[in-house]
Amino acid sequence: MTVEKNENRLQKQLEFIREIDKVKYIQRKTRLFESKRHENDAEHSWHLAMMCLTLAEHADEKFDTLRTIKMVLIHDLVEIDAGDTFLFDAKKDHVNTKDELRAAKRIFGLLPKDQADEMISVWQEFEEGKTPEARFAKAMDRFEPALQNESNGGGTWKEYGIGYSQIKEKLLGIRNGSLTIWRYTQELLRKMVVERIISS
Amino acid sequence: MTVEKNENRLQKQLEFIREIDKVKYIQRKTRLFESKRHENDAEHSWHLAMMCLTLAEHADEKFDTLRTIKMVLIHDLVEIDAGDTFLFDAKKDHVNTKDELRAAKRIFGLLPKDQADEMISVWQEFEEGKTPEARFAKAMDRFEPALQNESNGGGTWKEYGIGYSQIKEKLLGIRNGSLTIWRYTQELLRKMVVERIISS
Repeated sequence: MTVEKNENRLQKQLEFIREIDKVKYIQRKTRLFESKRHENDAEHSWHLAMMCLTLAEHADEKFDTLRTIKMVLIHDLVEIDAGDTFLFDAKKDHVNTKDELRAAKRIFGLLPKDQADEMISVWQEFEEGKTPEARFAKAMDRFEPALQNESNGGGTWKEYGIGYSQIKEKLLGIRNGSLTIWRYTQELLRKMVVERIISS
Repeated sequence: MTVEKNENRLQKQLEFIREIDKVKYIQRKTRLFESKRHENDAEHSWHLAMMCLTLAEHADEKFDTLRTIKMVLIHDLVEIDAGDTFLFDAKKDHVNTKDELRAAKRIFGLLPKDQADEMISVWQEFEEGKTPEARFAKAMDRFEPALQNESNGGGTWKEYGIGYSQIKEKLLGIRNGSLTIWRYTQELLRKMVVERIISS
């Protein structure tokens, strides 16, 4: 690669690296473990990457760890433009919306074209949730707030009055990634019902 | 693996996942891009992982991306016990101290032994900085605050009155990872001297 072309690519990549800093300001509904402080999207993405590294052995299917980590690292970047959607928001469905696709094209589009195309494809694979990588990544995306809510005596589930069956339905994605972790999650929910932290 | 052994491993892994949440409270001296808000270690680690993904092509040696990303994701976990050391702290050298090794053993030691051993070895490889993976990871660890300081009109360099030659010496690690990025960094510093943002 010529020096000129190299420098041109670097400029674009740095534009992207500066832009994605904004994800650190996007506040999630969920709070940190045993805490009142809300988590932001960068912290959340980092934690999911750590969970992928640590919990991979519980996946029901073999998966490519690097691709899965890419997914969780970038999955929330579209929220820079499209904002965070609460998992239990009844008005707005948590699926690949037009706004999110537009955001993906703008944000990943700051990169050189080959890299932009690859990032968009990784993000879309995550959203579609059909590959082993996407299934495990999505399982982690559901499991982290479950652990946080448990540590916070019910957390957002209690705060927004969300009951057992509604929670279970939203967390089903965990089952698609790991039966072991799904069993653990079910136990966690049952215990919270018995202790009357969440309604049955 | 038996269900029992599996569950036992999961318990240990979740202990680790809960513990490392604390890294989100560790504030760095550096501030976010064009911002007065300090960055925390989780945000910083996430950003470095994104930089490894995006800037890999500029590395002078081929490296294993997954291993490099592991390094940057975990490199600051020891600060949960040992605290953040400012790069320009004259009293405390920014090397693998006894405190940090003790912290690594405690924190990674929450994991099942095989995983703890692997994480400690990845962390030590980063600290030693002798492999292509560690050299690139360390280059990113130096380059991110340089970009942030530039965006903040000098940032911590200006705040603590640190001049060109001192900065250049501390940023030399970038040269060990990528000549292209090192050239970019030198230009950035020279421009800031010309504009009298930092002293020569």
